[in-house]
Amino acid sequence: MFRAGIAGATGYTGIELVQLIHRHPQMTVGWLTSESNAGQPISAVHPVPWDYPLIRLAEALQRTGDVDVVFLCLPHTASIEPVRAFQATGVRVVDLSADFRLQSAAAYEKWYRVQHSAPDLIPQFVYGLCEVNRAQLHGAELIANPGCYPTSVNLGLYPLARAGWLSHKVIIDSKSGVSGAGRQAKLLYHFVEANENLTPYNIGYRHRHISEVEQVLDTADPRGEAHRYYFTPHLLPVNRGILSTMYVSVPEGVSADDVRKLYAETYAGEPFIHLLPPDQIATLRHVTYTNRCAISITPANPEEPDGPDYIVVATIDNLIKGASGQAIQAFNIAAGLDETLGLI
Amino acid sequence: MFRAGIAGATGYTGIELVQLIHRHPQMTVGWLTSESNAGQPISAVHPVPWDYPLIRLAEALQRTGDVDVVFLCLPHTASIEPVRAFQATGVRVVDLSADFRLQSAAAYEKWYRVQHSAPDLIPQFVYGLCEVNRAQLHGAELIANPGCYPTSVNLGLYPLARAGWLSHKVIIDSKSGVSGAGRQAKLLYHFVEANENLTPYNIGYRHRHISEVEQVLDTADPRGEAHRYYFTPHLLPVNRGILSTMYVSVPEGVSADDVRKLYAETYAGEPFIHLLPPDQIATLRHVTYTNRCAISITPANPEEPDGPDYIVVATIDNLIKGASGQAIQAFNIAAGLDETLGLI
Amino acid sequence: MFRAGIAGATGYTGIELVQLIHRHPQMTVGWLTSESNAGQPISAVHPVPWDYPLIRLAEALQRTGDVDVVFLCLPHTASIEPVRAFQATGVRVVDLSADFRLQSAAAYEKWYRVQHSAPDLIPQFVYGLCEVNRAQLHGAELIANPGCYPTSVNLGLYPLARAGWLSHKVIIDSKSGVSGAGRQAKLLYHFVEANENLTPYNIGYRHRHISEVEQVLDTADPRGEAHRYYFTPHLLPVNRGILSTMYVSVPEGVSADDVRKLYAETYAGEPFIHLLPPDQIATLRHVTYTNRCAISITPANPEEPDGPDYIVVATIDNLIKGASGQAIQAFNIAAGLDETLGLI
Amino acid sequence: MFRAGIAGATGYTGIELVQLIHRHPQMTVGWLTSESNAGQPISAVHPVPWDYPLIRLAEALQRTGDVDVVFLCLPHTASIEPVRAFQATGVRVVDLSADFRLQSAAAYEKWYRVQHSAPDLIPQFVYGLCEVNRAQLHGAELIANPGCYPTSVNLGLYPLARAGWLSHKVIIDSKSGVSGAGRQAKLLYHFVEANENLTPYNIGYRHRHISEVEQVLDTADPRGEAHRYYFTPHLLPVNRGILSTMYVSVPEGVSADDVRKLYAETYAGEPFIHLLPPDQIATLRHVTYTNRCAISITPANPEEPDGPDYIVVATIDNLIKGASGQAIQAFNIAAGLDETLGLI
Repeated sequence: MFRAGIAGATGYTGIELVQLIHRHPQMTVGWLTSESNAGQPISAVHPVPWDYPLIRLAEALQRTGDVDVVFLCLPHTASIEPVRAFQATGVRVVDLSADFRLQSAAAYEKWYRVQHSAPDLIPQFVYGLCEVNRAQLHGAELIANPGCYPTSVNLGLYPLARAGWLSHKVIIDSKSGVSGAGRQAKLLYHFVEANENLTPYNIGYRHRHISEVEQVLDTADPRGEAHRYYFTPHLLPVNRGILSTMYVSVPEGVSADDVRKLYAETYAGEPFIHLLPPDQIATLRHVTYTNRCAISITPANPEEPDGPDYIVVATIDNLIKGASGQAIQAFNIAAGLDETLGLI
Repeated sequence: MFRAGIAGATGYTGIELVQLIHRHPQMTVGWLTSESNAGQPISAVHPVPWDYPLIRLAEALQRTGDVDVVFLCLPHTASIEPVRAFQATGVRVVDLSADFRLQSAAAYEKWYRVQHSAPDLIPQFVYGLCEVNRAQLHGAELIANPGCYPTSVNLGLYPLARAGWLSHKVIIDSKSGVSGAGRQAKLLYHFVEANENLTPYNIGYRHRHISEVEQVLDTADPRGEAHRYYFTPHLLPVNRGILSTMYVSVPEGVSADDVRKLYAETYAGEPFIHLLPPDQIATLRHVTYTNRCAISITPANPEEPDGPDYIVVATIDNLIKGASGQAIQAFNIAAGLDETLGLI
Repeated sequence: MFRAGIAGATGYTGIELVQLIHRHPQMTVGWLTSESNAGQPISAVHPVPWDYPLIRLAEALQRTGDVDVVFLCLPHTASIEPVRAFQATGVRVVDLSADFRLQSAAAYEKWYRVQHSAPDLIPQFVYGLCEVNRAQLHGAELIANPGCYPTSVNLGLYPLARAGWLSHKVIIDSKSGVSGAGRQAKLLYHFVEANENLTPYNIGYRHRHISEVEQVLDTADPRGEAHRYYFTPHLLPVNRGILSTMYVSVPEGVSADDVRKLYAETYAGEPFIHLLPPDQIATLRHVTYTNRCAISITPANPEEPDGPDYIVVATIDNLIKGASGQAIQAFNIAAGLDETLGLI
Repeated sequence: MFRAGIAGATGYTGIELVQLIHRHPQMTVGWLTSESNAGQPISAVHPVPWDYPLIRLAEALQRTGDVDVVFLCLPHTASIEPVRAFQATGVRVVDLSADFRLQSAAAYEKWYRVQHSAPDLIPQFVYGLCEVNRAQLHGAELIANPGCYPTSVNLGLYPLARAGWLSHKVIIDSKSGVSGAGRQAKLLYHFVEANENLTPYNIGYRHRHISEVEQVLDTADPRGEAHRYYFTPHLLPVNRGILSTMYVSVPEGVSADDVRKLYAETYAGEPFIHLLPPDQIATLRHVTYTNRCAISITPANPEEPDGPDYIVVATIDNLIKGASGQAIQAFNIAAGLDETLGLI
């Protein structure tokens, strides 16, 4: 049995982890932290039947002996010191914040507009995109859990990038459920503001999550190409789920069959990739409440079935495959467990 | 042309008033106030194409000459001083807060747990439930706009109360869209918390709005009976609309036909009461985005069609008939205009 | 490993069973039937990654050797002949239709307005309300799975009924998500008709599900009292979940503490009953996507905390505890397995 | 007073017309037709308080003397014969179907896959996109009302096209509320299927509405260019509203200021175009329940504010500006009325 500590347990990713751990046959809850609700049981904050007490992070740092792994669900910059503290005691760390996702402090500082206070730790982290970095995850002690939007985009386009078939210009029109914004009482996320609405925001080349797409796809590209990504996130009136509609071109001579084969081979045997047949298109419902990523590939023009233009749609549940589920999956791999434990 | 000032114009009832006034052939916007957004145009705060500047209430109090009527959309207790100030300058006032709805300072203090600072003003106000108090509204200078829940309940049960047919015990199971809670960033009203959920709150004999039901129905009852109201509000995952399901009994010997005739006579000629035929039940869709109140009356047991038990369902749009529309309607009556202006 | 056949696998309860069985460590899918989609894989009908072929019921009846248990998710009257056929071959049957829920053919005929064609089978069925009938479920070969509304009502009021504390008149105001109506393309369930709406229907003493409430609660009542139930279902704009708000009175002398103790004792050790503390009220979110039933008990009037009137709120996920989850739970009990397998 | 007949009055565009006409100071309802509900009042089919009887189209064709204008809300191909019949009697016709939108029978046959049975009538129709074709609409007797998606796209890109600044490749990622699909009981539009979901369909170069975009924008382009449109519609879980996110490039040397000036000049004085300031992005809430089209223009890359790439977002209410409101607007223009009557 692995005992898990969760720092920041009352946000949406934290409570999702509690639920996933309950279902995991080889994990139990060690402790849960919450600064604003310390002293209360988790059942006073979320509609769950479990009475785990919420403690402060400072207390948790004294109780590293109670846990084998810590999941950090803290705002960015807040993870850095705890990571160092937990690492020092030999506890495995999965960080769900953005602090160690980028493998360059410069990129972090460009996109997050704050200096990175622990650049020495960055190279020790494995970026936990399981389908891409599985080999490095075996035995990993420090894991940076990918962002939600980039998980949908990177899984959707990785085969093309790795084959060197991804066009220079990539248009990514993404739509995310409101839980992606976290459990914060802002007017933008008020029911009446978000419901029966659709709100584009940070459109073009503005959203921080572009950095993870550049890191994964440009790195995978054998030509080393710096692609031009246009990324338009939209706030969608659903609780959970991300759908990314992506417009790409492949080199001349590459047929629709070639593209399908490429995806099938890249993702052969992947337990959580659901590659759809040619006549289906990925929807949110393919993935919500699961750890799966559904991917569909459609020639843009039926009159040019082998034409260069394709529309790739990739969907995930932002709280599971886009956050807590992927964190468990990465932990399973790191700890040498069956990758799917707790995630079926 | 009547020029309207709106104090607290950026909440849901305030912006609804702006929209209704735009549609009203004999009203224009005088000024709009907002303490937190003063200096900006209303189009910076709401997705509307109008550039009216938002000013502070203190400035508005200097500009009473620019308006013929003021609608106060302020939190309770905050209306009291402005009411006195506007009244002094001869501007007609429609107060949408709870401060002057109750005709007794004691009742106000019991339910709102604060002393009333202007008990002398209370008797000068007319409670603006138009279908019940139309006569008193003619020429009224100070109007207290009813609460949203009580409007649905009072219109739904007033005929029975006035006839002396309302049972002692009245069970009122109400469901309200989230805009009823106002435009405040609380976690309870966060999209993810409210969506795909249903939340009962303040159940039984706890919600302040019961006071307005007691005031209207007990007063209307010719027997002077103090009924026992059980009121259970639920937060419903829709933007707008209130549906009250009410369980009542009528005296023996009163038939279903008698009940229907009573309602038809009580509401004959009412432009905004939609009395449904026996085979229909009121839904939110009967009334959303309108100033109507839909009412259905159904014998509880089809095997006892003239039995004593009935289920009355009454629905309104909480922002229109339950707030801003009713305020316009009351103003129309007070000002001697066609009651339906701006409300069709 | 138990192999399960599902007849009617493409409706909402059928597909939910497929998903639950996937998670169940001791069950696998034997076959799935669908008359309208036979010949296709289930992944062509639902957004799932599994390619189980859909076969006709006629074929399934030839393949009873492939299954240890059959779950029947067929319309009422359609289950009767298959039940007889499967029973003859020794396959355990859990029937999710209404055909064998009522232990009297007369009650069935009164409420369903059709003659029961297999009254001899009725007494062989155990009504699968696990918390009430657990003893009879051990080893049961024929199980009638309860309806969704009655599960919420019966679990919410069973302690009172069994204690003889349930008032004669019981008002039940229920709200159900749209999946409760099944996967049928009727205009009433069209997104635009149901969304941003709330629709009461079959109100009072009209809905068939009242029969199961009478059967369970009146039978449990030691005084043998035939209570008077007023039941008002509402179509709620959410995918899943039932919330029943119930208004009851207890005998004089029974205190709020007595009521709470009664519930705590009745449900002591129940893995799926979530009894809420006095300051919480049950919501849909307590139970959606789980097999739990959440129950809150609130004195109607805070000024009379030990007064006779209480509001009991009970919530379930209509597709899990109200259908497929309860079916698995009953099967687990019948087969001698840990009752919670596949349901955590 | 103009008396309006509505053929197909019980679909979503039909009932929306009834409501708009009620608000229009110079229009009244003449007759309403419905083949499936003839003989009933409209209040039996929709939750409205009006008792207009529904008659068959055959009867309406005998009662052309009762109306001055007919709005045809019939499925495509069904409008053709009625158009001829009404035209013969001198009644003005606004056809909301697709039958006369395309000014070439060949284009109609390519996209609708049916031969056009009245090609002689095509040139007599004016395409009712008011902001583009206002001059031709004055006095028009036959008006083809534009489709909903194309209205958002065409209004959003018309300034660029007319200036010759529209890039060859145009990517249009559109999202539409479910009412856009009409009031038909198909499983795809079932609440449970559409809610908490997002479904792309007919993606790339497949949707019929592309034909109206080609007709308007390619025709407006002074270079006569046949642009390449990629159009991806998504079914969005809201009742009403279309949001089109469009990715375009402008010629080198054209600055962001130039683009904004172009839009401002093109739409100067337009009562229903809401051009947003540079720091705002169009959302559904800008337009739902109004006849407005909101348009925002954002440079794709903030580091290249005068770079060639822009993201244009255009939103409309599909039932109003995308259908019935635009039909009234076009009628107002044709009849010489104030264009905004009934639409404020």
